[in-house]
Amino acid sequence: MAKTHAVEIRVRYGETDQMGVAYHSHFLTYFEVGRTEYLRSLGTSYRDLEAKGFYLVVVQADCKYLGPAFYDDVLEVATWVDRVRPTRVDFRTRVRRKADGAPIAEGHVVLACVNRDRRPQALPPDLRRVLGVTRDSPA
Amino acid sequence: MAKTHAVEIRVRYGETDQMGVAYHSHFLTYFEVGRTEYLRSLGTSYRDLEAKGFYLVVVQADCKYLGPAFYDDVLEVATWVDRVRPTRVDFRTRVRRKADGAPIAEGHVVLACVNRDRRPQALPPDLRRVLGVTRDSPA
Amino acid sequence: MAKTHAVEIRVRYGETDQMGVAYHSHFLTYFEVGRTEYLRSLGTSYRDLEAKGFYLVVVQADCKYLGPAFYDDVLEVATWVDRVRPTRVDFRTRVRRKADGAPIAEGHVVLACVNRDRRPQALPPDLRRVLGVTRDSPA
Amino acid sequence: MAKTHAVEIRVRYGETDQMGVAYHSHFLTYFEVGRTEYLRSLGTSYRDLEAKGFYLVVVQADCKYLGPAFYDDVLEVATWVDRVRPTRVDFRTRVRRKADGAPIAEGHVVLACVNRDRRPQALPPDLRRVLGVTRDSPA
Repeated sequence: MAKTHAVEIRVRYGETDQMGVAYHSHFLTYFEVGRTEYLRSLGTSYRDLEAKGFYLVVVQADCKYLGPAFYDDVLEVATWVDRVRPTRVDFRTRVRRKADGAPIAEGHVVLACVNRDRRPQALPPDLRRVLGVTRDSPA
Repeated sequence: MAKTHAVEIRVRYGETDQMGVAYHSHFLTYFEVGRTEYLRSLGTSYRDLEAKGFYLVVVQADCKYLGPAFYDDVLEVATWVDRVRPTRVDFRTRVRRKADGAPIAEGHVVLACVNRDRRPQALPPDLRRVLGVTRDSPA
Repeated sequence: MAKTHAVEIRVRYGETDQMGVAYHSHFLTYFEVGRTEYLRSLGTSYRDLEAKGFYLVVVQADCKYLGPAFYDDVLEVATWVDRVRPTRVDFRTRVRRKADGAPIAEGHVVLACVNRDRRPQALPPDLRRVLGVTRDSPA
Repeated sequence: MAKTHAVEIRVRYGETDQMGVAYHSHFLTYFEVGRTEYLRSLGTSYRDLEAKGFYLVVVQADCKYLGPAFYDDVLEVATWVDRVRPTRVDFRTRVRRKADGAPIAEGHVVLACVNRDRRPQALPPDLRRVLGVTRDSPA
């Protein structure tokens, strides 16, 4: 589970606020983009997971803001998985500004696997395999 | 169809941009809030429409921006229907700042009625009745 | 610092995602609305704070998601301050659905006071007074 | 002024709504990304324009929605300028889905050049030159 995948996201004008920086809620969206591309880099896709009836809902999101991100900044968003449980997976994300490497944010998001009726279910075996799970962390 | 319904919306911090004003895309959301409350004021609800299988999708949205809206401003969002066709309804919205009556924006949004599969269908009779339609405008 | 202030926020259509629930990033915005109204309930305003050169930037945001919020749901957003340090203030927020009291989310947001150049500065005395600070928590 | 610049934008999960498609307001943001990259393709940048005291504010935005865009779709966003007046510039944008070329949206956005105090001013000569203006359209 040491694999990290990085994507670049450019801050949009509409994501800034009147302090002149990216508004803090948008980092949760940046993290989501990071997770989407992380799964794609493993040869799977979150869109396909949903099509098969597996939904990953956010049950916890924590973010530390380490420095301002400005309009038009290119951010490097690095994502990795640090824990897999039978029905949950924890992602971590680190955001830096590409131009100078300045730390911008760090996130930790816990996702729970549910079915179409929002009932908990085990992560699909395919996802567990590409996440490199051989033995579960204790629930 | 002369009925107008007004609601108040306070500009959120996250809706401002680095020019220090409400970013222009959010006005489409303000218009949507206006339409939701317009329908509620008629004794119906858009949530119920969807539950019955009638979806109103936006097929056209035009907005004129007449003045800046600032963080914490209370906006008066007045909504009315100006045209009903068998499968479409046109809403208009006027936004003013409550404190000084300054004109902020004017919008025109055309909605098409579709079913769950996104196929066009006639507006439901209940909706037509509360919208006061006795005879359709030409399609 | 036991004062709690509650506001009602109705979930907007544009805030839902394809799972049919309010997308998780919007809760940070709901918390922000809660803080804005909390300060207003104390007789001050965040807009005025900024006008005087005091900016509160989010340095940490944690959110637990306890249940889904749906389009058109009215949410009760209760906000309180649980810690004040010389240059920081911690807010907590609890979100419930008004109709049935169902728990929806809990948030903890840490704000740092900075000046126009984003340099840390002490919270203004007026704000400290209305927050009921008589003695600081240890930094 | 025949130059068109195309960029790719992938629909984010948080941009979908409960109908399962990209919510209509986000297209104004996609258009903005298109304009930012259009200016960059000309060797200038909107960030630099603001740094020099030239702000382009949206005074009108019109959008036609031609088909649904889904989560994870890659959209081709093609932008061009179709009119330049002394203090205004009109952009047009066409959005197609990359996978099948399906038309998704068409936009027309009018921007006015203002200074830091939001007073109208002429477009800067550098911008007029890269936009290829030799003679103004009638105001």
